[in-house]
Amino acid sequence: MEDAIQTLVIQFKTYAGTDGSPNTLSKDEFCNLVTTQLPNYIKGRDARAVEKLMSSQDENNDGELTFSEFWKLIGQLVSEKEAGLS
Amino acid sequence: MEDAIQTLVIQFKTYAGTDGSPNTLSKDEFCNLVTTQLPNYIKGRDARAVEKLMSSQDENNDGELTFSEFWKLIGQLVSEKEAGLS
Repeated sequence: MEDAIQTLVIQFKTYAGTDGSPNTLSKDEFCNLVTTQLPNYIKGRDARAVEKLMSSQDENNDGELTFSEFWKLIGQLVSEKEAGLS
Repeated sequence: MEDAIQTLVIQFKTYAGTDGSPNTLSKDEFCNLVTTQLPNYIKGRDARAVEKLMSSQDENNDGELTFSEFWKLIGQLVSEKEAGLS
């Protein structure tokens, strides 16, 4: 499990480091990440729905997702996808 | 990233399915999981601290961790461990 967690952390940092703040995801970085890395988890969502997904987790509303906010979002997508888990 | 997420989901289900409810972790299942799968994330915590960790996330206080509660807990452990992420 630790390897899997590390994979998620490293990927987050890779995308977060593309522009601006190296530890948060901008809207572009977020869209890039989910489109490339999580295609099955955002299936059926168009670009607008993906942006909405991001803003739903951007608690302090600064247009950037912290790792915490990103982590919560994945948890939510997994719960949607996996029947029986919540 | 999807493979890494799947690994976490599958491992959660494997441990959660050991006794009682197949979709939640009992105290024993939780202790087993973190000791075996997350040794570096709980380093420095004794058995009592590990139990406390579980109860800190058990929001409805039923002695079982749902996937959501478990996911939040991992997010918290990662933030503790990774400097700069929160």
